[in-house]
Amino acid sequence: MAVTIELAIQKTHRFGSRESGDTAEVIERPGGGISVVLVDGQGHGAAAKLLSVQVAGRVVSLLNEGVRDGAAARAAHDFLFAMRGGRVSAALDILSVDLASSTLVITRNSEVPMVLRRNGEPRLVVESGGRIGIYRHTRPWVLEVGIEPGLAVVLVTDGVVAAGERWSRRFDLLTAVEGALARAPDAESTAEAVLHAALEADRGCPQDDMSVVVLRLRPGGAPQPVRRLRVDFPLPE
Amino acid sequence: MAVTIELAIQKTHRFGSRESGDTAEVIERPGGGISVVLVDGQGHGAAAKLLSVQVAGRVVSLLNEGVRDGAAARAAHDFLFAMRGGRVSAALDILSVDLASSTLVITRNSEVPMVLRRNGEPRLVVESGGRIGIYRHTRPWVLEVGIEPGLAVVLVTDGVVAAGERWSRRFDLLTAVEGALARAPDAESTAEAVLHAALEADRGCPQDDMSVVVLRLRPGGAPQPVRRLRVDFPLPE
Repeated sequence: MAVTIELAIQKTHRFGSRESGDTAEVIERPGGGISVVLVDGQGHGAAAKLLSVQVAGRVVSLLNEGVRDGAAARAAHDFLFAMRGGRVSAALDILSVDLASSTLVITRNSEVPMVLRRNGEPRLVVESGGRIGIYRHTRPWVLEVGIEPGLAVVLVTDGVVAAGERWSRRFDLLTAVEGALARAPDAESTAEAVLHAALEADRGCPQDDMSVVVLRLRPGGAPQPVRRLRVDFPLPE
Repeated sequence: MAVTIELAIQKTHRFGSRESGDTAEVIERPGGGISVVLVDGQGHGAAAKLLSVQVAGRVVSLLNEGVRDGAAARAAHDFLFAMRGGRVSAALDILSVDLASSTLVITRNSEVPMVLRRNGEPRLVVESGGRIGIYRHTRPWVLEVGIEPGLAVVLVTDGVVAAGERWSRRFDLLTAVEGALARAPDAESTAEAVLHAALEADRGCPQDDMSVVVLRLRPGGAPQPVRRLRVDFPLPE
């Protein structure tokens, strides 16, 4: 299937904090394709950051060794549960474009809703295996769909869906994503629009760490493909 | 130091090949900052790809655990030497912006020259610890410089520096990078310009896998920083 994978991640941290407890990593799959690992560690600040970096690193390392996504999520849970005895939890999402099976695989242990657009129709997905780290036998919820142009996925952390709550003005994820997907020409501007809407709902002062991950498949590949990655990482002033 | 880290990676594979033996991964450092791991596995095609994915994965996993860059490079060498008994080699570069020490750290086991621009002056850096995997006691060559606006680093794999050789028209890395840094406003267009020049020298048919990594530090951070990552991954037609 001749498509181009467009992926964008935009993150900011809780207002007044120095760092985000969310970690998002992108890696290449040994069998072809890419995976995004998004982890929201319980709490805020340095402890949450360290937790999410550890969990994400564990998952990245397993995926790099060819372990399937569902097994990597279970292993991350077992690791966290063994190390912290059920006292600390994390939300974990793995989003993969697996070229070996020509599918998009979504592996969820986050309870925050996500949006999936198939056949031009965006819908909210609320299914989840529940956060990792708390109960002994946590399993991820997995969705696998064929790769096709127009497919889009938007994952966020709870700081995005809870935006505006402080002012009793709940952020509507599906509406925000629907508008962004319709108007934005690519994954990056889609992510930008969703994060911007969440920041506005929080009046510019995010009440929690916020991350937005957007994957869009656009039609057409390339005869001599050039892969591009760009990171923009402003340091706090 | 209020700066914004700009990072760009552009990669293409050898003409007629399905995949690149170069692997480039970007990860967050547990102590703050980011690292890029660039590995060029010996040979071409699937075997080279698997080798570079394995070596890069090993390094990424160690950096995620807080291991310092030089120790991670040594470990990757020891791993490759132990597993393959000196029969297989790889070029390895680690480029880090380490916010814990406010330095840029360049750890080199690639023999391909790189370009470093300090105080507005780009120069070729040819020092290296030598490729990993061949001799028992390989050590990386490490350079550490303070973070400052205007600092720029360009790393490439050997397909870039060898571009044009087939037509006896050697690609001049320093000239290409100097021009790109002077004209391009950001890391992404710098990487684009360097890769474009190499592709032109090979008349549009790359004779080897080509990767270009560009890091630029631009002045100014942000009061509420938003980190952005974008990936464009066209599949072969």
